[in-house]
Amino acid sequence: MARRDGRQPDQLRPVTLTRRWSMHPEGSVLVEFGDTRVLCTASVTEGVPRWRKGSGLGWVTAEYSMLPRATTTRSDRESVKGRVGGRTHEISRLIGRSLRACVDLKALGENSIVLDCDVLQADGGTRTAAITGAYVALYDAVGWLAGRKSLSGKPESVMHRSVAAVSVGIVGGQPVLDLNYAEDATADVDMNVVCTGAGDFVEVQGTGEAGVFARDQLDALLDLGVAGCAELAEAQRKALAG
Amino acid sequence: MARRDGRQPDQLRPVTLTRRWSMHPEGSVLVEFGDTRVLCTASVTEGVPRWRKGSGLGWVTAEYSMLPRATTTRSDRESVKGRVGGRTHEISRLIGRSLRACVDLKALGENSIVLDCDVLQADGGTRTAAITGAYVALYDAVGWLAGRKSLSGKPESVMHRSVAAVSVGIVGGQPVLDLNYAEDATADVDMNVVCTGAGDFVEVQGTGEAGVFARDQLDALLDLGVAGCAELAEAQRKALAG
Amino acid sequence: MARRDGRQPDQLRPVTLTRRWSMHPEGSVLVEFGDTRVLCTASVTEGVPRWRKGSGLGWVTAEYSMLPRATTTRSDRESVKGRVGGRTHEISRLIGRSLRACVDLKALGENSIVLDCDVLQADGGTRTAAITGAYVALYDAVGWLAGRKSLSGKPESVMHRSVAAVSVGIVGGQPVLDLNYAEDATADVDMNVVCTGAGDFVEVQGTGEAGVFARDQLDALLDLGVAGCAELAEAQRKALAG
Amino acid sequence: MARRDGRQPDQLRPVTLTRRWSMHPEGSVLVEFGDTRVLCTASVTEGVPRWRKGSGLGWVTAEYSMLPRATTTRSDRESVKGRVGGRTHEISRLIGRSLRACVDLKALGENSIVLDCDVLQADGGTRTAAITGAYVALYDAVGWLAGRKSLSGKPESVMHRSVAAVSVGIVGGQPVLDLNYAEDATADVDMNVVCTGAGDFVEVQGTGEAGVFARDQLDALLDLGVAGCAELAEAQRKALAG
Amino acid sequence: MARRDGRQPDQLRPVTLTRRWSMHPEGSVLVEFGDTRVLCTASVTEGVPRWRKGSGLGWVTAEYSMLPRATTTRSDRESVKGRVGGRTHEISRLIGRSLRACVDLKALGENSIVLDCDVLQADGGTRTAAITGAYVALYDAVGWLAGRKSLSGKPESVMHRSVAAVSVGIVGGQPVLDLNYAEDATADVDMNVVCTGAGDFVEVQGTGEAGVFARDQLDALLDLGVAGCAELAEAQRKALAG
Amino acid sequence: MARRDGRQPDQLRPVTLTRRWSMHPEGSVLVEFGDTRVLCTASVTEGVPRWRKGSGLGWVTAEYSMLPRATTTRSDRESVKGRVGGRTHEISRLIGRSLRACVDLKALGENSIVLDCDVLQADGGTRTAAITGAYVALYDAVGWLAGRKSLSGKPESVMHRSVAAVSVGIVGGQPVLDLNYAEDATADVDMNVVCTGAGDFVEVQGTGEAGVFARDQLDALLDLGVAGCAELAEAQRKALAG
Repeated sequence: MARRDGRQPDQLRPVTLTRRWSMHPEGSVLVEFGDTRVLCTASVTEGVPRWRKGSGLGWVTAEYSMLPRATTTRSDRESVKGRVGGRTHEISRLIGRSLRACVDLKALGENSIVLDCDVLQADGGTRTAAITGAYVALYDAVGWLAGRKSLSGKPESVMHRSVAAVSVGIVGGQPVLDLNYAEDATADVDMNVVCTGAGDFVEVQGTGEAGVFARDQLDALLDLGVAGCAELAEAQRKALAG
Repeated sequence: MARRDGRQPDQLRPVTLTRRWSMHPEGSVLVEFGDTRVLCTASVTEGVPRWRKGSGLGWVTAEYSMLPRATTTRSDRESVKGRVGGRTHEISRLIGRSLRACVDLKALGENSIVLDCDVLQADGGTRTAAITGAYVALYDAVGWLAGRKSLSGKPESVMHRSVAAVSVGIVGGQPVLDLNYAEDATADVDMNVVCTGAGDFVEVQGTGEAGVFARDQLDALLDLGVAGCAELAEAQRKALAG
Repeated sequence: MARRDGRQPDQLRPVTLTRRWSMHPEGSVLVEFGDTRVLCTASVTEGVPRWRKGSGLGWVTAEYSMLPRATTTRSDRESVKGRVGGRTHEISRLIGRSLRACVDLKALGENSIVLDCDVLQADGGTRTAAITGAYVALYDAVGWLAGRKSLSGKPESVMHRSVAAVSVGIVGGQPVLDLNYAEDATADVDMNVVCTGAGDFVEVQGTGEAGVFARDQLDALLDLGVAGCAELAEAQRKALAG
Repeated sequence: MARRDGRQPDQLRPVTLTRRWSMHPEGSVLVEFGDTRVLCTASVTEGVPRWRKGSGLGWVTAEYSMLPRATTTRSDRESVKGRVGGRTHEISRLIGRSLRACVDLKALGENSIVLDCDVLQADGGTRTAAITGAYVALYDAVGWLAGRKSLSGKPESVMHRSVAAVSVGIVGGQPVLDLNYAEDATADVDMNVVCTGAGDFVEVQGTGEAGVFARDQLDALLDLGVAGCAELAEAQRKALAG
Repeated sequence: MARRDGRQPDQLRPVTLTRRWSMHPEGSVLVEFGDTRVLCTASVTEGVPRWRKGSGLGWVTAEYSMLPRATTTRSDRESVKGRVGGRTHEISRLIGRSLRACVDLKALGENSIVLDCDVLQADGGTRTAAITGAYVALYDAVGWLAGRKSLSGKPESVMHRSVAAVSVGIVGGQPVLDLNYAEDATADVDMNVVCTGAGDFVEVQGTGEAGVFARDQLDALLDLGVAGCAELAEAQRKALAG
Repeated sequence: MARRDGRQPDQLRPVTLTRRWSMHPEGSVLVEFGDTRVLCTASVTEGVPRWRKGSGLGWVTAEYSMLPRATTTRSDRESVKGRVGGRTHEISRLIGRSLRACVDLKALGENSIVLDCDVLQADGGTRTAAITGAYVALYDAVGWLAGRKSLSGKPESVMHRSVAAVSVGIVGGQPVLDLNYAEDATADVDMNVVCTGAGDFVEVQGTGEAGVFARDQLDALLDLGVAGCAELAEAQRKALAG
């Protein structure tokens, strides 16, 4: 059964990864999953936060945010409200954990990398697009450090895995891949799957707020997610070869 | 292979659910998973927030917090820091989603219930203990509303499912159930499983920050989690029968 | 004339001091004045804040807070509101001053102790229960430091006095001791008295928002408060001997 | 034994109350106790906060603050720090309670008066000067309401008492009245006494952070405070007659 | 004397105005002044803030912000710091005042438009690019309201003027137009000029922090600014005709 | 055509500069422009903020604020709101830039001076009065540092220029100097001019929110502003000679 936008259940939206979209950051990517558009930048600081000094280990962290009118109706800015909301916190933490999973912090040495993922336009799947794009920006930032001979290990040992992420869900009773906003809003189950290029899991988050789900449904969603991540890993490889 | 505290891999810690621990709330439970001790209270307000008025639907939300010295070293209070941290936000949202999954908000009618889960002592698994205890407190709060004839539906249709939660993880290569703090700190994979009393999933969150995990490992963890939740559902039934 | 709960005007509610209620803190007490229930923990840090380094003096401070549903109706969390309220500030400062009065900061040496007083259930007199319980938690924390040979002086010279506190007030024209919430809400004059074990005053705070009071009324309240503190000092001695 | 500035133990500093110091407020006073200088303004709003509407009762509240360089060294602004400190909160609440004690809120009718007490220069006793000055500003604001026929009762029944406040303390073993900063910094006991013009107590706050105090010392301090307040009440009467 | 980037003193950088860059907002423009890149969106709400209801007047306001890595080194997010900084406030207010100058709020009727100007990449002149782009986004938003017949007046009477802005400054002793970051960092005088399409001034802000400036220098800067704004007005006309 | 208060278009209100109004600050001035009354204090700290250490340069900064009832209706305190507003930020930054223009930070050496400008009563022109007064307070603070031999250069080389500021505007079609509140509220164009004692510009800020302005109007306003600043510079010289 085809989806509202004509895709097959196991089909991704068109994915583009535009490297070096920004001139200042050490790594930057404009990632698009269909109409979802996220600017991912990787900012390097030589040195680590005080509590980590002398450990020999690097640090990778992430911050996610949405422009106020990335969405169909405008949201108030968190800077104006004076506090970061729960959803923002939750997604920033997910991106940070996911990206740390592909970095050998010892080989990185005492360098810090902040991944900023700013959603310029939202149409579902912003957090998974952010993870997928941030990997490419991070890769370039590590390359920049390699060029300055600032790594403790070899660049390929720093970035010892790739990571990509995709959303899956049950919409109208059917498991589907890479939900857009309209699908996400009506999904019974919503899951984000983060995988390595080798197909292992980094993170799995499934929630059935508008329902519950059985083991076989969970299995079907995991199958879709693993396949989607494999496609995205291929897109990342091409972008980095470009 | 037995665990450091002598438990079998698939064994829960001793679980207690002390109903009506507090005199003021409409529902209250002191839940203990071993040395983890969480006070869960359910506070009823007749009426709903402004944006929900006239919808005929009720509202259930949750707030999680830790006392500053619930942990081995003292943490600064979030009230003193002037902001709620990311971890707190993330857990509060998980508890809220999980508990909304067991309530029919239409049958609840325009009533609001806030579930406060305050960790008095932490030894791993505070969020899963909180969900398990909050279910019982919520049940009593719905009963209180029933006593006042304030529900739109029958109490059994309001609380149409039970929910319970447990942590599972891979520690020293072995999948184990209900990790205490020492296990949690050394786990390669950490997963929280929230199930209904009927054994369906409400929420699954697995993360491999210190590693990645394969599909068969994920399957083993899910098996453990489902079995653990079934035991907890039985403990809830007993507490509510008491 | 007996009081609504059957007590004599000069009678305390049942007082319990449960030492070592928590496993992590260096000192901890669950103190109960009737239905008022406060968890007091003492957390030790070796060293002092930067502005005090090299002074040879220790530091003792306190933070008071209420769980949101410790009271008859739920209050919003101060962490969620993003600011500590005036009442909380005022009580935290009172507890801190009172407890510093019983410690020789020179004999304590450059160690810091934070007293956290979290009200689990409120029925009047929470600040006086907190002071009374915090003394016992502080005593145990100083003992813990003594066991690690981290004090500059002998433990008995560090804790050179005991302190306890009680509320007194004029209710229905009659001076009474240790007001519960119902009495407090209707009192014309409300006073908190903090005394040492030797019967000297550490702090006296009397207020007549719903009226004013004459010198002879003040004298009667002080008499009641001094006697009440003497009983509480005896309860502290017993708890510490246990 | 005379004091460092030549005063007798029971002698106030020169007190001035300059009415109508500001052009905009309904009541305003620049109050000086020696070198301590506080601008007190009373701002009237017809109507009361939402939670009080329809009660028939008025509302009086107070806010205290210090200019950053009112003191010997500069303090950071609380607006820049983003939070009101504990000391500020505590004093604002004391001023508010004290002034509410002299107003019949029923006779005031549904009007609100905010008393702003801003310390322009500090030399000890800022909170007691603030209370003493705020009474005069409040009196003028009530007069302004009377002129608009906006009171429920007669002005003399609205302001049915006067209030004034003074600090007392034990300095160098001697009880003294109205401490300046140098005395306050070395006092063993420090007490604030708020009295009505008839000599009754509104509020008594004594603290012995650098020591404890016996009943006879407390009695001597209360005697000094009552006499000091009587002198201040006379100064208020003169200012209002002027 | 040619400038470091080869431009003449009175030459703008290449200017592009990409309309409808975003899919959700009622008006949106990606404006580029050389390497400076600002996303301007106009968000319409039918209705006005409460304090303006019933006035018959519309409301236009602006918010400016920079992505954390829009600049050569990363800045902390204002949402994370919990407060909007002074520079951000100052620029948001300038943009809002400038855009209100081109709108007849009466003809707009009771509609609100928020202009969000988010700097994606910064190379000097971000606030002037923001004003220039926001005008085009605002124009499209007013057209959207016209299409819904929601204006009180005709669209051409709502947008009765155009506004554009440019920076001018004295660099190395020479007055120059449209400074890039390298020039801005070494300018002795820095001025922002906001003009209408008819060549009148809306706002003039000149500052000589690293020096002072004489009347003839001010005159030369104003001449440059007026000419630059005329060119930008032409670019706006072309974009809106496109 | 005479103005409502009888002044000529080019006439200042009566200006007074009362030096040493406060006892604690190293420099202090109560400045009055008619009924506008601002307390300016200069607070010296030997040393500079961490990021400036070792530079050999001093630091001068300013903070502006209004007492809540400096205005015709009361405003909420920014400390209570928990954030500094945009207008406050904007004016503080203007004052800081203006005063740094008259100081040679190298000759000042590694000393910091904070200029606090607190508006005690507002009747238009508070920011220009603040700049004019802060200059005198700053001069005295530099003299205080000279007396302690803490400057790197001679005092006359530290304060190598004077600065003063005045508002000008077009009211009822006529350019006027030093607007009071009633004029400011009805002005079509409002401009602040900051000049050195030698007549050069430090800062020019003109805005036409309720209209736009032509070049000849701008010229007329600048002429008025320069002449007004010259008079204020003379008043500063007299105050400093006094």
